[in-house]
Amino acid sequence: MDKLTIHDLILTPLKRISHAKGDIYHAIKKSDAGYAGFGEAYFSSVIAGEIKGWKKHTQMTLNLVVPVGAIRFVVYDPRDESPSKNRFDSVVLSAQNYARLTVPPGLFVGFQGVGTELNLLLNLASIEHDPMEAENLPLDQLDFNWSPNA
Amino acid sequence: MDKLTIHDLILTPLKRISHAKGDIYHAIKKSDAGYAGFGEAYFSSVIAGEIKGWKKHTQMTLNLVVPVGAIRFVVYDPRDESPSKNRFDSVVLSAQNYARLTVPPGLFVGFQGVGTELNLLLNLASIEHDPMEAENLPLDQLDFNWSPNA
Repeated sequence: MDKLTIHDLILTPLKRISHAKGDIYHAIKKSDAGYAGFGEAYFSSVIAGEIKGWKKHTQMTLNLVVPVGAIRFVVYDPRDESPSKNRFDSVVLSAQNYARLTVPPGLFVGFQGVGTELNLLLNLASIEHDPMEAENLPLDQLDFNWSPNA
Repeated sequence: MDKLTIHDLILTPLKRISHAKGDIYHAIKKSDAGYAGFGEAYFSSVIAGEIKGWKKHTQMTLNLVVPVGAIRFVVYDPRDESPSKNRFDSVVLSAQNYARLTVPPGLFVGFQGVGTELNLLLNLASIEHDPMEAENLPLDQLDFNWSPNA
């Protein structure tokens, strides 16, 4: 499991339970560390090699799980008061690294399709979608090398 | 969209939003009809042709979405006081029939893998998993013909 360095960014290993008729995969329970209330659950997919980002939420906590494919998440910490200001963390979530990434408000997130077929994330968001609480930044405005060979 | 006959069973069409880098699919918002509180979110998969069921929850409301593949859900109403007592409803959820099935407590549910590859459901459950609040019944104890040609 990858080691994250950004303050308040949480990576939680999750269980996949084998079943002869089809496996069961945990995502998030109300009693889990990182749960920050329920506002909305939605899926987002990202085509192989494509990158969505950067986006910073001012209110929403994201809880991200990848049930299908593989997605690289990159998080940047712009918070003046943070001990990890200006740090980047990068983690690939997939069946092989099945875990939940909890992203508190105030951090920039981008993500890239890594698997060659469907790459699907579930975001269990702490509030409902509200474009007014999110800030978008063009990809080239933060200096991160997304190349797979970087 | 299929027509359901069981009292309190809700089928809600959902949006899939096209995006050049990968689509976004709605699942459930706190303000949606059928939302009954958040306890746990988990995925379950079901192999083509296999059937999981029957299970009746006494406390949990299920909110079921199928982001990948196709799954047939069959619901049976055993409730003495219900206007739809002894009815069965059957609905296939998939990308082609992208919708949320809300199952209140007190109904038996079974589901079958219909797609030939991965068939995946998300259950946004109103309470955390608790084996004491669920009742299992062997498949042959309810008279439903699961054959695809039925």
